[in-house]
Amino acid sequence: MKINVVKSVLDASDTLARANRRRMDEANVLCINVLSAPGSGKTSLLQKSLPLLGESVRSAVLVGDLQTTRDAERLRDAAAQVTQINTGRGCHLSPEQVAEGLDGLDLPAVDFLFIENVGNMVCPAAFDLGEHLRAVLLSVPEGDDKVAKYPTLFQKADVILLTKVDLIGVLEYDLGRLGDDLSRINTAAPLIHVSNQTGEGLDAWLAWLREQKA
Amino acid sequence: MKINVVKSVLDASDTLARANRRRMDEANVLCINVLSAPGSGKTSLLQKSLPLLGESVRSAVLVGDLQTTRDAERLRDAAAQVTQINTGRGCHLSPEQVAEGLDGLDLPAVDFLFIENVGNMVCPAAFDLGEHLRAVLLSVPEGDDKVAKYPTLFQKADVILLTKVDLIGVLEYDLGRLGDDLSRINTAAPLIHVSNQTGEGLDAWLAWLREQKA
Repeated sequence: MKINVVKSVLDASDTLARANRRRMDEANVLCINVLSAPGSGKTSLLQKSLPLLGESVRSAVLVGDLQTTRDAERLRDAAAQVTQINTGRGCHLSPEQVAEGLDGLDLPAVDFLFIENVGNMVCPAAFDLGEHLRAVLLSVPEGDDKVAKYPTLFQKADVILLTKVDLIGVLEYDLGRLGDDLSRINTAAPLIHVSNQTGEGLDAWLAWLREQKA
Repeated sequence: MKINVVKSVLDASDTLARANRRRMDEANVLCINVLSAPGSGKTSLLQKSLPLLGESVRSAVLVGDLQTTRDAERLRDAAAQVTQINTGRGCHLSPEQVAEGLDGLDLPAVDFLFIENVGNMVCPAAFDLGEHLRAVLLSVPEGDDKVAKYPTLFQKADVILLTKVDLIGVLEYDLGRLGDDLSRINTAAPLIHVSNQTGEGLDAWLAWLREQKA
């Protein structure tokens, strides 16, 4: 009985996700779901990199948080359209919330739509929101053991960004261990080293984005 | 209909949590639920501080992770009894899992039981596991904006540990902002600055623990 309830909720969720994807396909929007733990640098990455896509590329962001509009405020100058979605106690964005977010955007005026999910390495990984691709961030201070501990998140990634790499050296970090764990879980997604402080890796991230859109 | 199912699940969960607490009360065990985002330093804190409680104090740890027994292995020398609980895709520990964990411990031989929850700032906050107190960790690299974004976690904290404070100065961090946000959400819980690298704050954390047990 309980299982049926859960199954029907997930089915409804997937149907909505497919509808979101169709809306974006029709508007020729490429949608990237950005996932990570809290504080891995999702907002900072978008803040730094979106302006570097150039004036002819139009970006929008739907940004999820339990509370506050702080991330949307930070992104105001980086993207043409930004919408904050507050989930209250919700541990992930849902396709319903994304559908509402899409209602408020001028989709034909968007090339890339980024969905910045709630900071959480577990629940957001289970929900298709209608995105085309998933970018997963992992920051150096979180430790080199997280891929094996949270495999689902990394299995479903289309690109993996190791952020705050300027802290390698300041903190103990075993890149070999990270590589070993990834080699068991996901060998298809490129791993890009990024620092929002030094700018390292932003060009590789932008090149990956442009390639997906081409 | 859906609401009833959810409500009955939560009621059953609370009943189990109360049973866990009763078992620990009867064995004179003080139980602390340790919560934070992934990589805030829960395992490191326990690893460094438990041996400092002294030989006469007997600690046990139930440690939750989706996958791997890495944390339990790290804690083997720090606590007399350590049990790893793998949650699979589960985003938080449940009172059922804790009850099973308790079955495997020699409770009369325990003074402090630490439950190291799954790294997640959202879901674990909603579940009473039967603990007496909650310790919430927040690491400097996660940023100074997390208290306002994840208020439930911090509202329910009995002590808050700001970890990796050796990185203040290396990273931009506004302690004033953290203090302002906390002053709106939780003024009862002490805020302890901790560094597992330098040892700063471990004495204050140990003093807090001893005080709760006294």
